[in-house]
Amino acid sequence: MISSMNFTDRVTELSQAKQSVLVLGVDPQLDSPQAPGVPTDYSLNRFCSEIIEACADQVVAVKFQLAFFEARGLDGMRALAEAMAFTRRLDLPVIADAKRGDIGSTSAAYAEAFLGRGNFASDAMTINPYLGADAIAPFLPYVESGRGLFVLVKTSNPSSGDFQDLPAPHRPLWELVAEQVHKWGEPFVGEAGLSSVGAVIGATYPAHAERARILMPRALILVPGYGAQGASAADALAAASDAPAPGVVVNASRAIMYAYRNDTSRKPPEAARRAAQAMRAELALALAQREG
Amino acid sequence: MISSMNFTDRVTELSQAKQSVLVLGVDPQLDSPQAPGVPTDYSLNRFCSEIIEACADQVVAVKFQLAFFEARGLDGMRALAEAMAFTRRLDLPVIADAKRGDIGSTSAAYAEAFLGRGNFASDAMTINPYLGADAIAPFLPYVESGRGLFVLVKTSNPSSGDFQDLPAPHRPLWELVAEQVHKWGEPFVGEAGLSSVGAVIGATYPAHAERARILMPRALILVPGYGAQGASAADALAAASDAPAPGVVVNASRAIMYAYRNDTSRKPPEAARRAAQAMRAELALALAQREG
Repeated sequence: MISSMNFTDRVTELSQAKQSVLVLGVDPQLDSPQAPGVPTDYSLNRFCSEIIEACADQVVAVKFQLAFFEARGLDGMRALAEAMAFTRRLDLPVIADAKRGDIGSTSAAYAEAFLGRGNFASDAMTINPYLGADAIAPFLPYVESGRGLFVLVKTSNPSSGDFQDLPAPHRPLWELVAEQVHKWGEPFVGEAGLSSVGAVIGATYPAHAERARILMPRALILVPGYGAQGASAADALAAASDAPAPGVVVNASRAIMYAYRNDTSRKPPEAARRAAQAMRAELALALAQREG
Repeated sequence: MISSMNFTDRVTELSQAKQSVLVLGVDPQLDSPQAPGVPTDYSLNRFCSEIIEACADQVVAVKFQLAFFEARGLDGMRALAEAMAFTRRLDLPVIADAKRGDIGSTSAAYAEAFLGRGNFASDAMTINPYLGADAIAPFLPYVESGRGLFVLVKTSNPSSGDFQDLPAPHRPLWELVAEQVHKWGEPFVGEAGLSSVGAVIGATYPAHAERARILMPRALILVPGYGAQGASAADALAAASDAPAPGVVVNASRAIMYAYRNDTSRKPPEAARRAAQAMRAELALALAQREG
């Protein structure tokens, strides 16, 4: 069962209990000539579930990047459904990193797919704002019943400025998206003071993140780009706010799942656990230093 | 097997042979209190395959809206894979209406998922430009080997102007996206003079469509919004260019699949076929009148 507790309240509670803002990203890479996406002797299922179990007490949620499961076809989708169910049994929130968004009737189907009750049911999902308000609206009733959204505002990739940073006309496009996210989220502020309509702001753009916090004072911000994409813990926390809750959760995917490639004396789950422990601690320290 | 022929050349050839610019959209709606998404006595598989077969000689491609399959979980994904395979056996191009787009390594996985060789392999797919150039780049090698892309430029929904029409700063955002689509597509112009890096322009915005054609003279434009969303055939063809090929394909989904709800003396496939025949003819006439 998916929790009916307000999503941000649940994340905040887990964050305080575990002293963690870390999210485990499950991104089983494609097989390449350099390295297989799933370690030798592992099935995709076992790789995902052992990594999740090993990191469970270090993280506040598990984020699944849909692309890497879709790329493996029906076997991948079955593995996704199983890994999501496994995560729920560990009492961890599931985030579907789906970046969906379409005309209203289609967005309603995406919302049902990822925030409803089916095989891919999650506690929260990422959505793309390019289609505007009526593409977002069908997701909001699910927020009303406890789910969370993370709207792409400023993404972590090098080209994110191509359109997101355009002056539109007086301020960058992403700032206008951020203002809309704040408005969409106002009815959904929980007990911790945060809205379950959150945003994605890449750790690779800390100046944007500081400004984002001003534009979206209540948003729970999901931060990709820490770890494999090169951003520091301080960069990843640039949007953190003060008490009662930092309002930021920081994802790391490859740096945890593939830690065994640089930590060759350990098996994948053990290497992942050590990487997650180190990142959790590094983020907690950076957060304490910010507040201090 | 997916054809290795240039995507737009294949569509153009089918368009000339069938005197059609119609695309069948397969959008099996969610069950609602008003009506079931799949007709009584039909399975999802049978509903999709009978509609596709009944309309096959009227259309130039079949577009699958992923959301409606994802909303049905693993059963839906299996039905999607089967319906896509069935479509290929009828020698019709498959378009995955996925609207994906993410950071580079993730876009690479989406490209493999929908333009590669797996269960969801398609001839073309729709992608979302909000993340910028490096999120598009991983799709381009697949275009090199014969696949097609439709980049969301101006979508058909009522709120599409929220961000797409913002002055950014001197011209609307969507026009800047259109210019990029033109640049991304330049290396992939086929024998018919059209690029396999195409665009989505909603039929509900014909003035935008006329301007889009100027900005993207070579793009194959996929036009949603004709039929159930209320745009006329003339509106749907506003981006059509002259010889040798109109460079436009027009999607209709609900108006074909659910024609049986208004044509109650016929079974779903027969009602769909009649609706597709009427739309094909209406579009062909409107195209001839434009050229005349």
